[in-house]
Amino acid sequence: MMHCMEKVRETMPIVHNITNYVTVNDVANVLLACGASPIMSDEPEDVADITAICGGLNMNIGTLNKRSIEGMFLAGRKANELGHPVLLDPVGAGASALRTNTALALKEKIRFAVIRGNISEIKTLAAGSGTTRGVDADAADAVTEENLDRMVEFAKSFAKAEGCMIVITGAIDLAADEKDCYVIRNGRPEMAKITGTGCQLSGMITAFITANSNCQLKAAAGAVCAMGLAGEIAYGKLKDGEGNATYRNRIIDAIYHMDGGTLAKGARYEVR
Amino acid sequence: MMHCMEKVRETMPIVHNITNYVTVNDVANVLLACGASPIMSDEPEDVADITAICGGLNMNIGTLNKRSIEGMFLAGRKANELGHPVLLDPVGAGASALRTNTALALKEKIRFAVIRGNISEIKTLAAGSGTTRGVDADAADAVTEENLDRMVEFAKSFAKAEGCMIVITGAIDLAADEKDCYVIRNGRPEMAKITGTGCQLSGMITAFITANSNCQLKAAAGAVCAMGLAGEIAYGKLKDGEGNATYRNRIIDAIYHMDGGTLAKGARYEVR
Amino acid sequence: MMHCMEKVRETMPIVHNITNYVTVNDVANVLLACGASPIMSDEPEDVADITAICGGLNMNIGTLNKRSIEGMFLAGRKANELGHPVLLDPVGAGASALRTNTALALKEKIRFAVIRGNISEIKTLAAGSGTTRGVDADAADAVTEENLDRMVEFAKSFAKAEGCMIVITGAIDLAADEKDCYVIRNGRPEMAKITGTGCQLSGMITAFITANSNCQLKAAAGAVCAMGLAGEIAYGKLKDGEGNATYRNRIIDAIYHMDGGTLAKGARYEVR
Repeated sequence: MMHCMEKVRETMPIVHNITNYVTVNDVANVLLACGASPIMSDEPEDVADITAICGGLNMNIGTLNKRSIEGMFLAGRKANELGHPVLLDPVGAGASALRTNTALALKEKIRFAVIRGNISEIKTLAAGSGTTRGVDADAADAVTEENLDRMVEFAKSFAKAEGCMIVITGAIDLAADEKDCYVIRNGRPEMAKITGTGCQLSGMITAFITANSNCQLKAAAGAVCAMGLAGEIAYGKLKDGEGNATYRNRIIDAIYHMDGGTLAKGARYEVR
Repeated sequence: MMHCMEKVRETMPIVHNITNYVTVNDVANVLLACGASPIMSDEPEDVADITAICGGLNMNIGTLNKRSIEGMFLAGRKANELGHPVLLDPVGAGASALRTNTALALKEKIRFAVIRGNISEIKTLAAGSGTTRGVDADAADAVTEENLDRMVEFAKSFAKAEGCMIVITGAIDLAADEKDCYVIRNGRPEMAKITGTGCQLSGMITAFITANSNCQLKAAAGAVCAMGLAGEIAYGKLKDGEGNATYRNRIIDAIYHMDGGTLAKGARYEVR
Repeated sequence: MMHCMEKVRETMPIVHNITNYVTVNDVANVLLACGASPIMSDEPEDVADITAICGGLNMNIGTLNKRSIEGMFLAGRKANELGHPVLLDPVGAGASALRTNTALALKEKIRFAVIRGNISEIKTLAAGSGTTRGVDADAADAVTEENLDRMVEFAKSFAKAEGCMIVITGAIDLAADEKDCYVIRNGRPEMAKITGTGCQLSGMITAFITANSNCQLKAAAGAVCAMGLAGEIAYGKLKDGEGNATYRNRIIDAIYHMDGGTLAKGARYEVR
């Protein structure tokens, strides 16, 4: 994982983001913090050109609209043609028919390298339908120590079915391909009180896998560990009276200062 | 008011926001800070489903466009059907024909629980037309100690005419229904140097009234006091050289740490 | 320059921004920090009315779409009719055909007071075509001490050809009209690790030239010096472990506290 992070800083991949307007600024800043270069574009007439000058594509349906959905299909097709890794963040899949159907149609038409969501969103995609509590995961669905074996199998089998990596984030994070599953225990529960830590992670995963084409799963898991570890480091620096707004900044700051050695030392995971 | 705030943290209402892209991230973070769960969606095909899984709806016309306007009507109608409280923040009403006409048409077609704006915007809606200095209130219109009696009457009579609560924010804030008007003296003038404190307040009011259906006016006034008090607490924590950007974060941080007791002690208001 | 900054705080110009959704919140906060009043509107039916109540117009094509492009032409025409200064920030010109063509068409149809971009974007506009590394400048194109004479001539001659001021930002910044070129050496390389410092600068330049109609070039150069100086002041205040997210806030804070005297003392420039 150490080398995965260093490779991002060395190669400075350009990441094309079609993402929601709620957390887009944090996505841009966290990409800069980890050494990548972000560019945002969602207009159908613009996206293919932009994708062509980038190395990877991060798609997030958090505030999707008909124009940006069209942009996602066009950008995804171009990225597939060029062999760029593409990530899908199906924000709110299960919460509305449009979100569920768009996520399902995207994974039908576009070859994704990674799908990253919370457990409710991923279960919706696996089932082909579902219900989600807004954009946050249902507690009833959470990955826990008790159901871990079963969830690891679910992640691997969904990865196999889709032919792509599956990243499920929550109190315990899973990053799986069809053979291996990283079980990751970095992070802090307070991160759920900041809007967009998931969106930021999706951006970072895209940067990590773009920079590390020969060790994709380790790179994806490395990004998950880095984000969680940044949450731990930032939490340790919070002073009296500081809350979720300052915490948000300190997490990005922690990514900014994180090197491969810090990540290697702080990453807490096992491979199953 | 103490209980109103605690009720938000206990019930964690999901708030659907159709809001401007300038301050949307702060709206999301302040909603999380006060214990609510935000979701943003403005695509006409998406909004009814999203409203259906939420408890309240916050509409803000700050960067309205034809698509999002259509989304507002559809979401508002659905929220009305479901009996969810709906808030209108008529940003810039009076500053352009489209904004004025959209706000007027919305209040014609949608049953609002609250309309919240600065005095220029509210006067525009009351008059059915008007002029506004950009998105900030005209100094000439301000609620002052001198014209307070008159403004309290104006707020109550507009509340009666509209059949909804009216919240007018400025140096002195008013939160009125047809019978009572909270006159609130929390807050700091420096808050006007941060973009979006009004938008954040609209989000918080929506969360407060969603969680407190049996004491709506007290809940709305409680949100106004909480925002102003957070401005006071945050101002007290500013260090040498810190300006409006850090102040913005510290206000959200103050909401994050505020409990009912702090609010009860710090709220400065009278009911007229 | 001292007076240019003070004039912004005295006259509080209202600036209409049609800008990207990535950095829009920071643009609004930096405009408030320097004493101006921001308003954002990109809907074609809304923009002419909004421009009419403003003093200046800031156009940024960072996340352009067909609707906002139409808004830019309409707002620009209105601003030209009213004699308001208009700034073009051609984000990503050279990176896609749509961006290049939109920027070229805008400068064909709208009379700009300033075009501000990085060297890759400006060269694209000067050549009528080009290639850009995402939204960041190509290192190969950078303004350096070695090619400074040539770049100063380029800036002046492009200013002459366009009949407007040209501001090229990078390690060394240039602000030129056809006769004079400010060569500015404020700023820190770490500012490139924050998304949107360029967008913020474009907003500030618009405020400065709106408030200083009788010394436009000095005002534009003053805004460039102020932004760079804020970067230096903010960098000096960074504490151990603070990175690009906190740096972003501290730069806006530094603008908030900057007065004409601080700017006069800290500005580092020569006129060629």
